[in-house]
Amino acid sequence: MILNNRKVSEKTIRRLSHYARCLRHTRIKGKEIVTSEYLAKRCGISSAGVRKDLAVFGEFGKQGSGYDVLGLLANIEKILGTGKPLHVIVIGAGNIGYALLKSGLEGTGGYHYTAIFDSDPEKQGKICAGIAIQPMAELRETIRELGEVIAVIAVPDGEGQECVNQLVEAGCNAILSFVLEPLDIPEGVKLRYMEISTELDILTHSMMRTGRIGR
Amino acid sequence: MILNNRKVSEKTIRRLSHYARCLRHTRIKGKEIVTSEYLAKRCGISSAGVRKDLAVFGEFGKQGSGYDVLGLLANIEKILGTGKPLHVIVIGAGNIGYALLKSGLEGTGGYHYTAIFDSDPEKQGKICAGIAIQPMAELRETIRELGEVIAVIAVPDGEGQECVNQLVEAGCNAILSFVLEPLDIPEGVKLRYMEISTELDILTHSMMRTGRIGR
Repeated sequence: MILNNRKVSEKTIRRLSHYARCLRHTRIKGKEIVTSEYLAKRCGISSAGVRKDLAVFGEFGKQGSGYDVLGLLANIEKILGTGKPLHVIVIGAGNIGYALLKSGLEGTGGYHYTAIFDSDPEKQGKICAGIAIQPMAELRETIRELGEVIAVIAVPDGEGQECVNQLVEAGCNAILSFVLEPLDIPEGVKLRYMEISTELDILTHSMMRTGRIGR
Repeated sequence: MILNNRKVSEKTIRRLSHYARCLRHTRIKGKEIVTSEYLAKRCGISSAGVRKDLAVFGEFGKQGSGYDVLGLLANIEKILGTGKPLHVIVIGAGNIGYALLKSGLEGTGGYHYTAIFDSDPEKQGKICAGIAIQPMAELRETIRELGEVIAVIAVPDGEGQECVNQLVEAGCNAILSFVLEPLDIPEGVKLRYMEISTELDILTHSMMRTGRIGR
């Protein structure tokens, strides 16, 4: 693929991920062709922007007739690197951890929750959505067995840094945090936050901007 | 405030939100002054970037001595419009909805969950984290009582659009979606997604880029 060997910006990756999500939904509905307007409306950007992004997939788009859903999706997944399923492990069997496992990752394009860990001995061995809660001491061995994983951390606020340290120590290089506290990570480890706090701030700010709320 | 009357980009809002979150944690620890390096490390950007962002708050930063935590936080919250608490309502008393209410919004700078709704009559009236689950029919009245709210939707996949339609109909203008499906909203309504799927894609792509996984 053209884009495979050059750096794609995070913003572009984010948009491609949105297109992929939308295409998967479209595929489920049995639709075979989509227009740039269709993707644009559902992904919240302009149709000119969609066409520009997808121009690199020339063969899948035809002026006036739209894009082939399956072909486009396969190519976007190839660029994203998400064509093959990746294991996702959860650290913290609290409310959020349980809810994530129970909700699953259907529709995300192949990710699935494989293991869950908790430092509380009372929780260990209990079953959550068909998966037994493991002690943190088994982290390293599980990661070695699974290969590269993404760890989702959903531990109580204040325990995030210790959790990250243990993950890094166990060989995990990609972390998605539901913990609000800012976390230090060594070079080479990727960390992203699920930022409900930031999303609420962005929504609040835009309501203030449009005069819906006075501050 | 200087920035109050001009448009601030979403990227800047996001960074300001990160600084605010970090400053709140710092405040809890009793620290009164922070350096740009401190904020930079914890927010994952360069210290030059932090200094540039915060240059507009001239009076709170002194060369070599850092920023006053409380003063800087108050001013960032003023720009964000998040200085006063805003009500957050949850639609969908499933696993995610329950987990959100139980986790609360401590540390987010004043947001709090005020109400939860579900279309399932069996759930209505039950108590979750001290809040009684209301029927969707009460949505409009509750929103009218609360004033502007942010609605977090955590309904099953496939029910998102109907839920959004009901919210818009009831006068809600700001929605944060945990639902994966792409949603149509009318002009003037703000919609954001909590994109676990996108965050996993970004992490996977960056692992592929650094050669940790071959695709």
